[in-house]
Amino acid sequence: MQLKKERGQLIVLSGPSGVGKSTVIAELLGQRDNIYFSVSYTTRSPRVGEQDGVNYNFVSREEFERMIRDNELLEYAEYVDNYYGTSLKAIQERLDAGIDVLLDIEVQGAAKVRARCPGALFIFIIPPSFEELSRRLHRRNTDSEEVIAGRLEKARVEFREIPNYDYLVINDKVSNAVEEIEAVLTAAECRVENRSSILSQFA
Amino acid sequence: MQLKKERGQLIVLSGPSGVGKSTVIAELLGQRDNIYFSVSYTTRSPRVGEQDGVNYNFVSREEFERMIRDNELLEYAEYVDNYYGTSLKAIQERLDAGIDVLLDIEVQGAAKVRARCPGALFIFIIPPSFEELSRRLHRRNTDSEEVIAGRLEKARVEFREIPNYDYLVINDKVSNAVEEIEAVLTAAECRVENRSSILSQFA
Repeated sequence: MQLKKERGQLIVLSGPSGVGKSTVIAELLGQRDNIYFSVSYTTRSPRVGEQDGVNYNFVSREEFERMIRDNELLEYAEYVDNYYGTSLKAIQERLDAGIDVLLDIEVQGAAKVRARCPGALFIFIIPPSFEELSRRLHRRNTDSEEVIAGRLEKARVEFREIPNYDYLVINDKVSNAVEEIEAVLTAAECRVENRSSILSQFA
Repeated sequence: MQLKKERGQLIVLSGPSGVGKSTVIAELLGQRDNIYFSVSYTTRSPRVGEQDGVNYNFVSREEFERMIRDNELLEYAEYVDNYYGTSLKAIQERLDAGIDVLLDIEVQGAAKVRARCPGALFIFIIPPSFEELSRRLHRRNTDSEEVIAGRLEKARVEFREIPNYDYLVINDKVSNAVEEIEAVLTAAECRVENRSSILSQFA
C-alpha cells in the first residue's frame, strides 16, 4: 500500500571502487520514487566531464572549513589533501518531508554516520568475487596496474568493515543488485515502527 | 544473486480472520521457490471441503497428546476444546536444508515461537481499515452477525499484539501484500549474517 511516510529513511551505500556502484545507484534512482541522492561536497577540482551539483558540490577549502565549523556536515574526511563531506541540512529537510535519502560514502564516513544515525540502513555492495573486481577494474581501462593494485588493496581493507553493515548486496548483474536494494528499502517501509500512523487507526 | 542458503528462514504470519491471509499465502507460495508452508496439526474434525495434509493434519486427541509429551511441537494451543499445533520436526528438516518455512499462526502461538526462535521473521497482515475488515467478513457470507461481531472483537485484541511483530503488511490488494512480503523475505536473505558464506570468500 502506498502510504505517505512520516519520515524518510536514510540509506548508506558503500562498496569498493570498480564494483559498479554508480550504475546501480543510477538505475535505482530511475526506478524508485521519493528518493534523493545526496551529492557530496569536496574541495578537490572537478575532473573532465564532472559537473558541479551532479557528481559533487565543488567548494573552496575556506567554504568547506566554514561548513565544518558551523556543524553543517553529517560526516567528512580528508583524503590526499582534499576534503569530502555530506551536508546535514540537505538530508534533514528531505527526511523530514518523508523522502528517502541515499548516501554513497566510504567505510570511514559510514562509521561516522552509524554513530550519529543508528536508525539508518547500511548496505555494502560487493562483486561476485575478488577476481571479478580485478577484471572490472582492468576493463575500465582508466587506471595503471599500480593504481589498480592500490584499489584492490583498499577493497580488501574495506571488506573487513562489512560485518558493521546491515545488508550485503552482490552486484553480479545490475538488475539483481537493484532488485535486492529495492527489497531492502521496501522491507524497511514495512517495519512496524515505520507504520505507526496506520497502526494508530487500529488502536 | 541466487545463492544456496546455509539455513532457511522461519517466517511467522499472523492476521485477523477475514483479512485474506490464505489468498496471500497461496499467491506467495505460487510465486516463490524454496519455501514450505507448514501445515498445522489439529484434533478438530475436518469441515466440508477440508483435506487432511492440506488445510490441517487431522489427528486424534491421543496422538496430539503424545506429540506434546514427546516434545514434537514448536507451539500448540487449545481453542474450544480442540488442540492446534505446529510440528517441530517438519520445520527443522526444511530449515536445515536451506528452505524457508512459513507458519500461519495466531498471536498466542506467535508469542511462543518468538520465545523459542528469536531469529524468525514476524509479519502481521492487516486490512486497510477496520471497516474494510468488517465488509470482508460480511462479504464471505458464511457467518452470522453474532459470529462476525465475535471475529471483529477478536481482531481488536489481536491488533494490540502488532508492536511485537517485525513487519506490518497491509492487504489492500493481494498483489501488493505479496510484494511486500516478498521484499521482507528478500531483504532477510541480504542481511550480512545470512551471507556469511559469500562474505568468507572476501576475508
